[in-house]
Amino acid sequence: MLEKIDHIGIAVRNLDEALKFYGVMGAGADHFEEVPAQKVRVAFINVGGVNIELLEPTSEESPIAKYLEKKGEGIHHIAYRVPCIRTALDKLRAEGIKLIDEEPKPGAHGMQIAFVHPKSVNGVLTELSQAGDH
Amino acid sequence: MLEKIDHIGIAVRNLDEALKFYGVMGAGADHFEEVPAQKVRVAFINVGGVNIELLEPTSEESPIAKYLEKKGEGIHHIAYRVPCIRTALDKLRAEGIKLIDEEPKPGAHGMQIAFVHPKSVNGVLTELSQAGDH
Repeated sequence: MLEKIDHIGIAVRNLDEALKFYGVMGAGADHFEEVPAQKVRVAFINVGGVNIELLEPTSEESPIAKYLEKKGEGIHHIAYRVPCIRTALDKLRAEGIKLIDEEPKPGAHGMQIAFVHPKSVNGVLTELSQAGDH
Repeated sequence: MLEKIDHIGIAVRNLDEALKFYGVMGAGADHFEEVPAQKVRVAFINVGGVNIELLEPTSEESPIAKYLEKKGEGIHHIAYRVPCIRTALDKLRAEGIKLIDEEPKPGAHGMQIAFVHPKSVNGVLTELSQAGDH
């Protein structure tokens, strides 16, 4: 049911500085995007089909700004691609896995997404994502 | 130069409990291994060609036990596959990226590995790995 790792989201203070390591390793950002709903600027780096997403807050109100204040820079979440997000949520709920989002919501790139609570996934904030809206 | 994400290492208190989420999602452990040098038991879960490695300490002296005590459960490191680890380390050193290992060392599965300091990689403990020992 977990088809692949879609992306790994990393909270950073400054995108340009954060891109340095990847640039030295020959992996530049493929794409930049501002996501006003989350108050972040994002750089996408494709590594063998998995996106590294560097997330820089654009406001102190951003959830990423709050994360940085509390925990500092580091991995914020892992997102897995699933074939059907509603089926996945139903299965998790039935097994007592704690969900943050009971229903899928629209994410970037026209994806349907939902977050699973880190308490049920080894402390890792986990996103499920499904292409399209079927 | 970053060919792919080889694995994501996650520090957990208890492998059996940690495997629950992945099991519900149909992704069971492919393989278990005890690594005495690191004082850990590891469960490997293949998700679309990337291994999720759940790391449970077998002793209070384990680096993972210390990590759990300090930070709790969560992502411990990301490992990238590179074609030549010595070339990668030379490039990083030349660009002022802080290394933990100046020289490659033997890792699991006959890999050559080296760690890059999280201070130079957005707070993420980063492993480089190369198959074989050429």
